[in-house]
Amino acid sequence: MKLVLGIDPGTAVTGFGVVALEGRAPTLVECGVIRTNARDPLAQRLHEVHAGVSELIARHRPDTIAIEDVFYAKNVRTTVVLGHARGVILLAGQQARLTIHEYPPAEIKKAITGRGAATKEQVQFMVTRLLRLKSAPQPADAADGVAAALCACMTATLPKLPELKLSTLLAKAAQEKRK
Amino acid sequence: MKLVLGIDPGTAVTGFGVVALEGRAPTLVECGVIRTNARDPLAQRLHEVHAGVSELIARHRPDTIAIEDVFYAKNVRTTVVLGHARGVILLAGQQARLTIHEYPPAEIKKAITGRGAATKEQVQFMVTRLLRLKSAPQPADAADGVAAALCACMTATLPKLPELKLSTLLAKAAQEKRK
Repeated sequence: MKLVLGIDPGTAVTGFGVVALEGRAPTLVECGVIRTNARDPLAQRLHEVHAGVSELIARHRPDTIAIEDVFYAKNVRTTVVLGHARGVILLAGQQARLTIHEYPPAEIKKAITGRGAATKEQVQFMVTRLLRLKSAPQPADAADGVAAALCACMTATLPKLPELKLSTLLAKAAQEKRK
Repeated sequence: MKLVLGIDPGTAVTGFGVVALEGRAPTLVECGVIRTNARDPLAQRLHEVHAGVSELIARHRPDTIAIEDVFYAKNVRTTVVLGHARGVILLAGQQARLTIHEYPPAEIKKAITGRGAATKEQVQFMVTRLLRLKSAPQPADAADGVAAALCACMTATLPKLPELKLSTLLAKAAQEKRK
């Protein structure tokens, strides 16, 4: 059995989901959010995010941590603060010597729904179906953490053979052109 | 005696300086850099930065950590990666329960040289004079860490009385205008 901790990083709300993979059927173990108070200093909030993620790792002992990559917000300041939160989450994963996967938001959406530009609702719908849940994980940030974990499960079980073949063909074609 | 650890954050090179303040005379205790390898994964490099700063804190037991604020580079990606490094440095300070000061680059330059737009050479010249050194701390990133520490020392010893008075006068003027 493989256990994946998925994280959707944030300074205000960090969503997480723990997904177990036995064979090809993923099961939801736990999901939720780590909330911090916007009125507290940034260093204290980072400490809470780091302690929260470290506690999850100690309790579940996952093999892998899957972390959503930075979403480049229009407001650069927002993106930079998000970088601070991602920094302490990556650190928690590294300190526990987990395998670390980072996925851009579009890659997670594509792995779950088949479309990189899928809506939040489409992602939630597929997360609910894939894990055979009665309703989507709540709140939305928790569902995003679960989606990151599922992405790691799906890319692990379904090697991208067609893409591999395509790239091999393209490389061959380029090689022949050079001759 | 007050001990300040100043940090100029970076993923490749993090500069640091430890400055002791007894009365009004600051003394350089130690300075240097924490280097990481660009070919290593980001999580590992963040781990090295965090471990390096934590080791400095354990060894010197400073009261205060002074961290240079994010420099908004033209390349947003660079700024965001820098945010990750700052995140783990702020975390190290918070875990050791230090007083944390964050200073924008211009504020450090102004505290050291009197000019927010001072050149790197002007800052290094003043750092050398203020600490009565024979030459500027090397490499340049170490000097930036020392400058951050000096900024915390100087703003602590020299309360900005003239500015305070000016703001009081302006507030009074605004109040009278409203009448």
